[in-house]
Amino acid sequence: MPLNRLEQQIQFILEIDKLKSILRRTSLVNEARRENSAEHSWHIALVALLLVEYANESVDILRVVKMLLVHDIVEIDAGDTFAYSGVSKAEQRAKEVAAATRLFGLLPSDQAAELHALWQEFDQEETPEAKFALAMDRLMPLLHNYHNAGGTWHEPGVNLERVQKRMSPIGASSAVLDEFIQRLLADAVARGLLKP
Amino acid sequence: MPLNRLEQQIQFILEIDKLKSILRRTSLVNEARRENSAEHSWHIALVALLLVEYANESVDILRVVKMLLVHDIVEIDAGDTFAYSGVSKAEQRAKEVAAATRLFGLLPSDQAAELHALWQEFDQEETPEAKFALAMDRLMPLLHNYHNAGGTWHEPGVNLERVQKRMSPIGASSAVLDEFIQRLLADAVARGLLKP
Repeated sequence: MPLNRLEQQIQFILEIDKLKSILRRTSLVNEARRENSAEHSWHIALVALLLVEYANESVDILRVVKMLLVHDIVEIDAGDTFAYSGVSKAEQRAKEVAAATRLFGLLPSDQAAELHALWQEFDQEETPEAKFALAMDRLMPLLHNYHNAGGTWHEPGVNLERVQKRMSPIGASSAVLDEFIQRLLADAVARGLLKP
Repeated sequence: MPLNRLEQQIQFILEIDKLKSILRRTSLVNEARRENSAEHSWHIALVALLLVEYANESVDILRVVKMLLVHDIVEIDAGDTFAYSGVSKAEQRAKEVAAATRLFGLLPSDQAAELHALWQEFDQEETPEAKFALAMDRLMPLLHNYHNAGGTWHEPGVNLERVQKRMSPIGASSAVLDEFIQRLLADAVARGLLKP
């Protein structure tokens, strides 16, 4: 017997609880432990609501928030990849595509299609909403590291140039936020938190 | 020198990181550990997006989501109160009012006013958005407990009548979801997960 619509939705809702057990490389601001992807998603959805006034282009903030709430769900199957880890992008991408199909596929087909499309839109970094959402996703680890004595910036191979490259989506979406983070990064280098 | 607008926003963004360390009474679905209020907020914001079709009245889903993203922030200062604990409501309320003033007050005044109003709206349970948001907040612990062999339903003094009373906001906001949870509760009693 096929599951009815509400049962499918509840099954998805229970399955995504697993995102609370996916650990990111960044720590909480108080450094007590590593952050998980569910609480991170909460944080940046709220950050997007607060900072949307700085987006260069006008954005549909509801779509941005939806995107941020779902953007990491694929990690339940595919895991979190550290930004500076050097893992093959194609390999990780294949895992995430399979994860999106399985996870969003738990939902009724209309909602599966909507969430899958939002995740793809985020991943393609083309629409103003996707660009702004990505900028929020990049901003948070920077704030965490800056306020955590450097945090993951101390890992081997990380330096100003790599961080600036990683943060380039912020510049692509918001001139105000770009100016702000460039000041922060210069200060981080001056204080020895980040290698020049 | 007063902080500029963006600096105030960043200060709030860093402060609310503390919500990730506020533990709720409910456990994760896999029972590995207790859930925190930040990841819970992520979960129910997404649940609201998925289940909004079942709201009795038409709701502005962006306002519902905003409300759910901010509704627990006061716990940073006031702590989480267990639903069945018997702590004085007036006492807890006073703590939360002070917390809202301090925490939202970190923001520029226009955003402080907006978030404070959203929190109050949620707390007053009157608008269709507040009612639906509250229903989502009540639904999640029920799903967690049902799929966690009873979870916090085993605590002293908890029985079907108290849980039904606690879940009454679901009935106030959605006939479909109310029918669903009544079936779940009856089944929970039949299986010995909840005292009759």
